[in-house]
Amino acid sequence: MKANIGLIGLAVMGQNLALNMNAHGFKVAVYNRTTHKIDEFLNGPAKNTQITGAHSLKELIDSLESPRIVMLMVKAGEVVDQYIGQIAPLLSDGDIIVDGGNSLFTDTTRRTLSLKEQNILYIGAGVSGGEEGARHGPSIMPGGNKDAWPAVKTIFQSISAKVDGEPCCEWVGDNGAGHYVKMVHNGIEYGDMQLICEAYQLMSEGLGLSARELHTVFAEWNQGPLRSYLIEITAAILAYKDRDGLPLLNQILDTAGQKGTGKWAGINALELGIPLTLIGESVFARCLSSQKEERVKAASVLPKRTLKFIGNKKTMINAIRDALYAAKIISYAQGFSLMREASKEYQLSLNYGDIALMWRGGCIIRSLFLNDIKRAYDATPDLENLLLADFFAKAMKQADEGWRKTVILGIELSLPTPALSSALAYYDGYRSEKLPANLLQAQRDYFGAHTYERIDQPRGQFFHTDWTGHGGKTASTTYTV
Amino acid sequence: MKANIGLIGLAVMGQNLALNMNAHGFKVAVYNRTTHKIDEFLNGPAKNTQITGAHSLKELIDSLESPRIVMLMVKAGEVVDQYIGQIAPLLSDGDIIVDGGNSLFTDTTRRTLSLKEQNILYIGAGVSGGEEGARHGPSIMPGGNKDAWPAVKTIFQSISAKVDGEPCCEWVGDNGAGHYVKMVHNGIEYGDMQLICEAYQLMSEGLGLSARELHTVFAEWNQGPLRSYLIEITAAILAYKDRDGLPLLNQILDTAGQKGTGKWAGINALELGIPLTLIGESVFARCLSSQKEERVKAASVLPKRTLKFIGNKKTMINAIRDALYAAKIISYAQGFSLMREASKEYQLSLNYGDIALMWRGGCIIRSLFLNDIKRAYDATPDLENLLLADFFAKAMKQADEGWRKTVILGIELSLPTPALSSALAYYDGYRSEKLPANLLQAQRDYFGAHTYERIDQPRGQFFHTDWTGHGGKTASTTYTV
Repeated sequence: MKANIGLIGLAVMGQNLALNMNAHGFKVAVYNRTTHKIDEFLNGPAKNTQITGAHSLKELIDSLESPRIVMLMVKAGEVVDQYIGQIAPLLSDGDIIVDGGNSLFTDTTRRTLSLKEQNILYIGAGVSGGEEGARHGPSIMPGGNKDAWPAVKTIFQSISAKVDGEPCCEWVGDNGAGHYVKMVHNGIEYGDMQLICEAYQLMSEGLGLSARELHTVFAEWNQGPLRSYLIEITAAILAYKDRDGLPLLNQILDTAGQKGTGKWAGINALELGIPLTLIGESVFARCLSSQKEERVKAASVLPKRTLKFIGNKKTMINAIRDALYAAKIISYAQGFSLMREASKEYQLSLNYGDIALMWRGGCIIRSLFLNDIKRAYDATPDLENLLLADFFAKAMKQADEGWRKTVILGIELSLPTPALSSALAYYDGYRSEKLPANLLQAQRDYFGAHTYERIDQPRGQFFHTDWTGHGGKTASTTYTV
Repeated sequence: MKANIGLIGLAVMGQNLALNMNAHGFKVAVYNRTTHKIDEFLNGPAKNTQITGAHSLKELIDSLESPRIVMLMVKAGEVVDQYIGQIAPLLSDGDIIVDGGNSLFTDTTRRTLSLKEQNILYIGAGVSGGEEGARHGPSIMPGGNKDAWPAVKTIFQSISAKVDGEPCCEWVGDNGAGHYVKMVHNGIEYGDMQLICEAYQLMSEGLGLSARELHTVFAEWNQGPLRSYLIEITAAILAYKDRDGLPLLNQILDTAGQKGTGKWAGINALELGIPLTLIGESVFARCLSSQKEERVKAASVLPKRTLKFIGNKKTMINAIRDALYAAKIISYAQGFSLMREASKEYQLSLNYGDIALMWRGGCIIRSLFLNDIKRAYDATPDLENLLLADFFAKAMKQADEGWRKTVILGIELSLPTPALSSALAYYDGYRSEKLPANLLQAQRDYFGAHTYERIDQPRGQFFHTDWTGHGGKTASTTYTV
């Protein structure tokens, strides 16, 4: 009996996806470059399953039913191209390659188009949910060559998470759409995590709450509108005891890692010219955390004042909760704005309601909140910005006061809140009919003859002033800052 | 008599550089693709000069003395490659091509290496100063093939700005070093401009100062440590009257343009993993300003509370001045940190003191302040971060209180200060011995088996916890978020 799908790459995600597929009745054949890992897997976690191993790519592909589906769970980048180069010649017309790693969306677009010419159907699928999600139901975001979708749909929707009976897996769009949406997902994940860290620091260092007290606060938050996987695991982490009975969290070094896709979202936002400030700050916050030695030095050169919080702790905790909620709304508003621009720019035909639906379960950013986003896009599919939807506009107004109090607390106690404060600046900027960019345009025209528009003239008419009385009349056409 | 240098591209920068070279006794031949512009220039601004025109590239190159120096002042990108492709076959061994546009440093590296194989010496030179600077003394940042430096040094150092008799032009480094440093310069320029805009909005909308009063404030600031070209022209802009006698500034539309290199600095910082938060926010602030229609809509959906400033205006103005100064220090500290990393990563051998020297005059960000940076690097050439230098550490302490008051003012009045507040968050994060990234690492290990380090164990040892009691033992090696 032939296998339904072949899976290459037995790191943590690959192993767990294979076990998940097996548990749903699919026959999986696996391969790994370091072949002893295949046997370790078959004799370990995959013991007593239907999973079979192949010790060469040819053996793997020969073991698959037609059309063959080969899923790559390998390191993004050149490794994916190398595998495609080795597998493609072994496949037949209409066979399918799925890349389930964190590939850059432009690579996925390139691969989809190039394999199409060889009559091989390519899918780039974002897979989120970590170890647990991969094993018990991830969020899967497939895009690429839509002709491949019918053949993989049953497998992917079976193994994906379900919310209210609906699978957290739907066709995302053409070319790199799946990996694009996964990239934004990961950026939002960076933002959500950074926001929780800032709230945690304000309450632990600022308000002096213990790990036990913080556990209670996060567990409580998880019963309200902030209900989400990341809040839930934060509560669990705060309760986790090290061998000595003390909180393990306090023993963990404060240097955050990152190897992947968060920064891509920031880079893409800069390229498309869409403010993605909260995610940008979150990526940079990880960078700063990793400069540990320099920070230790700076802490002695530039010591902080030691001020204590005076006031009602309970009220302040609620304000911090409101700040976290409001800033989270901003982060998603920015992320969806970015996808809106990308959908136009790269012709991805994204459906924002479906994306919210896919993220409701399985993935790291799963939350109650995504239902509200889904509803907002169902009501207004071409919504320009989440902040303009009634539900979120109302939520922002309610959280406004607590949010401001929270950022001010951080400023007064010298506790950094890059994401919370960046979100607030975006919010106040976004709802500003007038920004001070008139001065900026005047400066650009002053030193570089870059011209400006006028409020008393129609848009699209550009004016240049000889501010100094001795500049030229040449407007800048090709040389621009 | 042959010309000393040929210049291609007669937009505002090209015209003014040609006039500047001519004024310093160099014989310049010019060419422009749209040839009628050549005659317009020769019969207009270049009338009664030694400047000659060429109506074909061949004619231009034949008119040059050996080694020929051809300077491109054309739009960055493909146009540069097109010109190089047309010019190179007309040149001889040892001839020189200089690109004075805003090219991406990686393009400059590529061009330098490729032309070296053809025995043509390539220089990528950042040129800053706008129209006025180009005409009367810009800052010039040349890098690339150092063998070309002796031949162009006299011309470039003659036409460049001088401060205390020293030219604002020095050899920057290998390959794309010149354009790299120009890119960071432009990013810093974005930051300086955004900071001034935020101070302007706080004082105009927040404190209710008129253009005339604001003119006085900026003119006063220009006598102190903030003394700089951008503060100076801000004062001048505030005083400039439209035809009706009212401030022209108030008639200018608040949508900022950008076509070039500011975003590249942000992208590069994300790629190198160095926090460049203030410049990132400044780029995004321009993007937000250009979403004018959406902002107008948001202003009615999410109206601001109308609060008035109560307090001593004079004291608040001084606080805003301190905030601007402190945030400016942060911006330069971040920019120089980025260059430090880039110098290692791309082997540029940058000299930070020389860079500060080059920026002291001629360019848009020229300021008194750059002398202090120069002194800091003279004292400690391998300084890790400007904030650790005595002068700046002391300045930060003095500005601390006013800075916090200023950001709080913006928060209370709903006036956005993305750059001022982002800088403050960086400052408080940078001098934090402990950041909340321990929680972030715990989360990453919880959902993705990404491992963490411990404070009671040596660096470089990584631990994984099975937080849920039912996860696997497989640490994440190839699949990382």
